[in-house]
Amino acid sequence: MSTPAVAIIYTSNGPVETALSALHHTLPVPIGTQVLAETVCSPINPSDVRQVTGANPFKQKATTKLGTDHPVTVGGNEGLFRVLQVGKDSPLKAGDLCIPRVPGLGTWRTHILCDQTDLVCVPSSLTVEQAATIGVNPLTAYQLLTQFVDLQKGNWVLQNGGNSAVGKLITQMARIMGVNTISVVREREDFESVAEELRDLGATQVITDTQNQDLTFSVAEWIGNSSVRIAFNCVGGTSASALVKKLSQGGTLVTYGALNGADLVIPFATPEFVFKGIVATGYWLTANIMRDPELKIKTLEKVYRYYQQGLLKAPSFSKARCSFEDFAHCYQ
Amino acid sequence: MSTPAVAIIYTSNGPVETALSALHHTLPVPIGTQVLAETVCSPINPSDVRQVTGANPFKQKATTKLGTDHPVTVGGNEGLFRVLQVGKDSPLKAGDLCIPRVPGLGTWRTHILCDQTDLVCVPSSLTVEQAATIGVNPLTAYQLLTQFVDLQKGNWVLQNGGNSAVGKLITQMARIMGVNTISVVREREDFESVAEELRDLGATQVITDTQNQDLTFSVAEWIGNSSVRIAFNCVGGTSASALVKKLSQGGTLVTYGALNGADLVIPFATPEFVFKGIVATGYWLTANIMRDPELKIKTLEKVYRYYQQGLLKAPSFSKARCSFEDFAHCYQ
Repeated sequence: MSTPAVAIIYTSNGPVETALSALHHTLPVPIGTQVLAETVCSPINPSDVRQVTGANPFKQKATTKLGTDHPVTVGGNEGLFRVLQVGKDSPLKAGDLCIPRVPGLGTWRTHILCDQTDLVCVPSSLTVEQAATIGVNPLTAYQLLTQFVDLQKGNWVLQNGGNSAVGKLITQMARIMGVNTISVVREREDFESVAEELRDLGATQVITDTQNQDLTFSVAEWIGNSSVRIAFNCVGGTSASALVKKLSQGGTLVTYGALNGADLVIPFATPEFVFKGIVATGYWLTANIMRDPELKIKTLEKVYRYYQQGLLKAPSFSKARCSFEDFAHCYQ
Repeated sequence: MSTPAVAIIYTSNGPVETALSALHHTLPVPIGTQVLAETVCSPINPSDVRQVTGANPFKQKATTKLGTDHPVTVGGNEGLFRVLQVGKDSPLKAGDLCIPRVPGLGTWRTHILCDQTDLVCVPSSLTVEQAATIGVNPLTAYQLLTQFVDLQKGNWVLQNGGNSAVGKLITQMARIMGVNTISVVREREDFESVAEELRDLGATQVITDTQNQDLTFSVAEWIGNSSVRIAFNCVGGTSASALVKKLSQGGTLVTYGALNGADLVIPFATPEFVFKGIVATGYWLTANIMRDPELKIKTLEKVYRYYQQGLLKAPSFSKARCSFEDFAHCYQ
């Protein structure tokens, strides 16, 4: 018995309004190690949209397995699936909740037929929101905090984009680790209420971008004898340079995004490299997981534990229940 | 019996013409583990001058041991000494050739009285020029090539300032290691003869700064399936950015100087960090040696061997024999 399904596909890069379309197709009964699952929910991340437009260098694989004449690509990298049926050689069972094991599986679809090795089961104790959004932002936050510097209790981390989903997760995870945070957020009328929300999540200090870029503004009084070991930059430009000024000797700047646009530059004065011994590098979850899928599993287990212990709040997001025919409007 | 001596000293930072003066003094007979040595020759490096002016954050220690009322600092970090007399507990002996063990000893003087632990003996098989200049540029070149990336035979390194002393040493040492080099030199009328000199030293390719900064200029044909693992920047600004463009995926940019001025910036587009996985960092020999003096000894031994095997030419420099009273003129 075949299952009717809809997938949001693209055949070439372009604006989401014109590149995406809904593909109605049917999926056969799973055989061997295959799994047939329904989609519980599938987030839309800015990076998913950039894959459609072509701004992201990671290319999802196109396929003709959905019955099309030409290869098509299913959008989306995050999603929560509930297993409906399994082939006789699959260790999964109906009702299991799963997320994609590696990027590029294509999650914007009502149903998926794939090999069981394409999926990772998640604990049923997680909420739908926790499980559906666990694969990108929490992993990014945890790996940023743990892959570059061996942070000790009492150390400080500094970040711009402090009010972003990743920013809030970094703040919460740093608190769990006993690490202090300074979060930079944009100047805004409701700064105090945003700052209070971030402090509630665990931010030690919250400053405005104006304070961050003010060369007379010093964090020395907060830090005392401790160190600002690492700074996380998702903005670029002068905001990133201002983070570097606050790093301690030998500090690390990790760039993981460019909210202000992908071609912004990060100016470094040579003495910061030569005399202050700064290391500047980048982080890209997709490349990290493609290189080492096992690391994803290990990181997920840390995040499960945080959620199960009630130590971590999933970042908020806007929910949309949209018709598959009108899917492109969800991206607006 | 005391020894008359002259040292070039400064008491506060300033332009070399006014900050430096000659101090006539006498040195006593060495006791215990002390050593009295005469200076064979002492190079003047740009970084020595920046210590006098205050542009270099490394501060040499001031002392009243030369008999002054107020603490004075003896300039210079490199020099070759010949031991004249030793205290009864010193393992050194008259005639030994030595260089400073750590930066800041003060080498611009006719004679030095110091503890034997302040000196490292060098093989007498080295020429005076090799021995006197071994402590800075060859160590820098060797450590740049070995401390950041595990270069394999056939890999490529890229550098600007290819015609500098360090640049020529990097080229020669890379050849010894079986590593290919691309050296960027400034546009000049005698480009072909400079390029030929560098190719004679072992440069695989020599390009002009204009070619380096031309976005349509590609090194792909030279590299083939190999990688540009690391680039060395001593210039800054757009020259450094152009090096980054030529680095392979995951490459490293090491900044060790700023020939165009210390406050030049190195612009990085965020995608270079995020998608190309570039690591940018700095190198400072002084900090390196202060942290690990034993590493200096080990690196020196590598360089002795290269010299003794005739594999390495000491970089050329201008020689000056100047009166100590008129010492400041040597810096012009």
